[in-house]
Amino acid sequence: MGFTHFDENGKAFMVDVTNKKETVRTAEAVGTIKVSKEVYEAVKSGTVGKGDVLGVATTAGIMGAKHTSDLIPMCHILPITNCSIQFELDPEEYAIHCTCTVKVTGKTGVEMEALTGVSTALLTVYDMCKAIDKSMEISGIYLRRKTGGKSGEIINMK
Amino acid sequence: MGFTHFDENGKAFMVDVTNKKETVRTAEAVGTIKVSKEVYEAVKSGTVGKGDVLGVATTAGIMGAKHTSDLIPMCHILPITNCSIQFELDPEEYAIHCTCTVKVTGKTGVEMEALTGVSTALLTVYDMCKAIDKSMEISGIYLRRKTGGKSGEIINMK
Amino acid sequence: MGFTHFDENGKAFMVDVTNKKETVRTAEAVGTIKVSKEVYEAVKSGTVGKGDVLGVATTAGIMGAKHTSDLIPMCHILPITNCSIQFELDPEEYAIHCTCTVKVTGKTGVEMEALTGVSTALLTVYDMCKAIDKSMEISGIYLRRKTGGKSGEIINMK
Amino acid sequence: MGFTHFDENGKAFMVDVTNKKETVRTAEAVGTIKVSKEVYEAVKSGTVGKGDVLGVATTAGIMGAKHTSDLIPMCHILPITNCSIQFELDPEEYAIHCTCTVKVTGKTGVEMEALTGVSTALLTVYDMCKAIDKSMEISGIYLRRKTGGKSGEIINMK
Amino acid sequence: MGFTHFDENGKAFMVDVTNKKETVRTAEAVGTIKVSKEVYEAVKSGTVGKGDVLGVATTAGIMGAKHTSDLIPMCHILPITNCSIQFELDPEEYAIHCTCTVKVTGKTGVEMEALTGVSTALLTVYDMCKAIDKSMEISGIYLRRKTGGKSGEIINMK
Amino acid sequence: MGFTHFDENGKAFMVDVTNKKETVRTAEAVGTIKVSKEVYEAVKSGTVGKGDVLGVATTAGIMGAKHTSDLIPMCHILPITNCSIQFELDPEEYAIHCTCTVKVTGKTGVEMEALTGVSTALLTVYDMCKAIDKSMEISGIYLRRKTGGKSGEIINMK
Repeated sequence: MGFTHFDENGKAFMVDVTNKKETVRTAEAVGTIKVSKEVYEAVKSGTVGKGDVLGVATTAGIMGAKHTSDLIPMCHILPITNCSIQFELDPEEYAIHCTCTVKVTGKTGVEMEALTGVSTALLTVYDMCKAIDKSMEISGIYLRRKTGGKSGEIINMK
Repeated sequence: MGFTHFDENGKAFMVDVTNKKETVRTAEAVGTIKVSKEVYEAVKSGTVGKGDVLGVATTAGIMGAKHTSDLIPMCHILPITNCSIQFELDPEEYAIHCTCTVKVTGKTGVEMEALTGVSTALLTVYDMCKAIDKSMEISGIYLRRKTGGKSGEIINMK
Repeated sequence: MGFTHFDENGKAFMVDVTNKKETVRTAEAVGTIKVSKEVYEAVKSGTVGKGDVLGVATTAGIMGAKHTSDLIPMCHILPITNCSIQFELDPEEYAIHCTCTVKVTGKTGVEMEALTGVSTALLTVYDMCKAIDKSMEISGIYLRRKTGGKSGEIINMK
Repeated sequence: MGFTHFDENGKAFMVDVTNKKETVRTAEAVGTIKVSKEVYEAVKSGTVGKGDVLGVATTAGIMGAKHTSDLIPMCHILPITNCSIQFELDPEEYAIHCTCTVKVTGKTGVEMEALTGVSTALLTVYDMCKAIDKSMEISGIYLRRKTGGKSGEIINMK
Repeated sequence: MGFTHFDENGKAFMVDVTNKKETVRTAEAVGTIKVSKEVYEAVKSGTVGKGDVLGVATTAGIMGAKHTSDLIPMCHILPITNCSIQFELDPEEYAIHCTCTVKVTGKTGVEMEALTGVSTALLTVYDMCKAIDKSMEISGIYLRRKTGGKSGEIINMK
Repeated sequence: MGFTHFDENGKAFMVDVTNKKETVRTAEAVGTIKVSKEVYEAVKSGTVGKGDVLGVATTAGIMGAKHTSDLIPMCHILPITNCSIQFELDPEEYAIHCTCTVKVTGKTGVEMEALTGVSTALLTVYDMCKAIDKSMEISGIYLRRKTGGKSGEIINMK
């Protein structure tokens, strides 16, 4: 199977989905930011009191998911019908795990929306903590699950 | 040192840089996408002939860096004076490494612009290859080097 | 009835409308800007000759309504099918009343689009007149009427 | 004094500020949303526990202020150097008061940025509470104070 | 037949398409940029080796088509289902011809999307070559063909 | 002289202007739309009464100029200090001529802003008249004059 975003002359284009059926599609993407102990503690205490880094990152992630077709050149404009961001704190690794779930009734999937939502949320965490720690690292961004469309359900267990 | 993006009541705000001096600032961020052998070969041959995935991703990454303040809530609007994206192919790991370099003469740094440029470029590679491989993973996004501003030069060797 | 934009842990999310039916929905929002006599006369004469403040504000209001999902974090992207802006001049109060009407065939309503259209139109009037009067005030922004959807027709008489 | 945004033929244009001096400019705008007792209590308890409406609205308001030149046709693009949003709860009136403060070192003022920040923040409160109360009203949006530029300090006491 | 974008008082509005049927619609727009011999040769060699002006312009054109409703005040937001850009080099005239094809299943046509795609692609060619030639000219932008909707197929042969 | 937007490997990048001096720069771009007699008469009468096509197009053109760096991938973000749009009606040719003038104090020129302003204004005229005439053509888009920067004043007489 070859690229779907290039024509026979190697020119990029937005894939034609005109004749695809509208079906319910979901995608769930994940990612992680590893931070210093100091950042970890600050983020953790913020979520229960003040300085709510993850609250701001949740809002940014949802807005980022809505901006996907502005950022990714060959992505279709999709009126997504649901988007949520969840964070989980991992005290062993000083890691913050993020999950973004997106749904649509549409002609093409929302994998890129979920991945863009996760990326934007994690970049926002980075931005708000970078005065404390300049060596944070974002990793493990991948599609955990999708449903709907021609390829049906796909689950990546890592 | 605590958060700089929250006031004494824990409310988020855009940091006041009004009185900071304009200096030349640079930032270099990196990141990687790991792909299947099939995607790796397709991307590699595309760069020398047709189906130029990395060309589209370069354009998207530069445009993404310019969108940083739209995506990251507390980021300042910065009229960046230079942005470039470089890719390096790693045949051992079927990995594509991306570097984004950004410069500005401004009151605050361009770390977030470089990180957003890398993230957008890698998401674009993902988008253009996802019909072939649905288990690609983006990782290793961090700031490799920055110069300028109060904290001066910082280098992260990983 | 509680918030619909927060989950059971108090985390904000975009409400899931995947399974809602597409129906015709309309919304009409209103708002007012009170200005000085001098501004009032200038705006009024502009509409019949030159310096058409309300023409520019109409264009801005319609474009603002289309930007709603970019501005309001939890709003869905809605391909609105109609938008109009009307102004009415009130010589007793030196007030300019604005109405924005929006329609869509969709899974969720267009109240926020109508309210954002009114707000943007009134802010544009403010901007174009602020060299003359710096104490103008925008007030009375509310939803006057909506139809369609589960809650059906709602009319606010004030 | 006449309009500054229209030429001698009544055609709108963006005012020429090329030769104005860069000075520090600040603006503070305010506005209010009046809500039902039920919404008031929900918002109030959210700020101390879960369902943080005002946290989301703060983020939206800051991002809205950065979008001002996209929304208001004749506004200049200004790289604002500071933006903050404050809310105050008024239990007598079931009112939520919002203040947006913006700074820049620039050739023109940031009144519109402060007013757009307030409007976007209040519209976001509306959006997140509209399932409970459909008759909320936004009012009292005006410029409370500005400093810098040719017109110097202006204070509106209302 | 008169204007469709103005009401009986001459006020502009977004045309109401709420009750129009969703049908497949396509549009093909064309345009040309005339350049110097030096630019022509540089662009031509770039497409077969390095300095791929037309690759960047293709990406920009597709993204531009997706931005149509942000740019053109009375345009509806349309989730286009296909977009492609083609270039043809004319060695006689040192001209670069561009064609943009857009499809949608929607209530209104995609003529403006195709025309905006062509315009953005040609402006991008201009930008990337303007250091070499400052007298390039863009011309011949028109709708070559549309299908679907009430007016059916229309072909402009020029 | 070769391309300035590609590195030695042919990869596109945003030109580094970090060390260029800030000077006053201006650019004036022009363009034309040729329309049917019927459209010409409607536009002409609109400008003196109701249905002000050119008023809407002026607003759109100014907003388009501000969006230049969003549309043209390698363009710098420039806080333009002035933008105006002028139209001239040509009764011999049923042509509408548009001129866009832009100024900035910056490190790089505003040619692309002026050209994007003209293009957006003419596309808006097209949009508002396309129900009457589907064979309009946009042509003659070029840079008439620029001043400032290393290349100084350039005038294109055509």
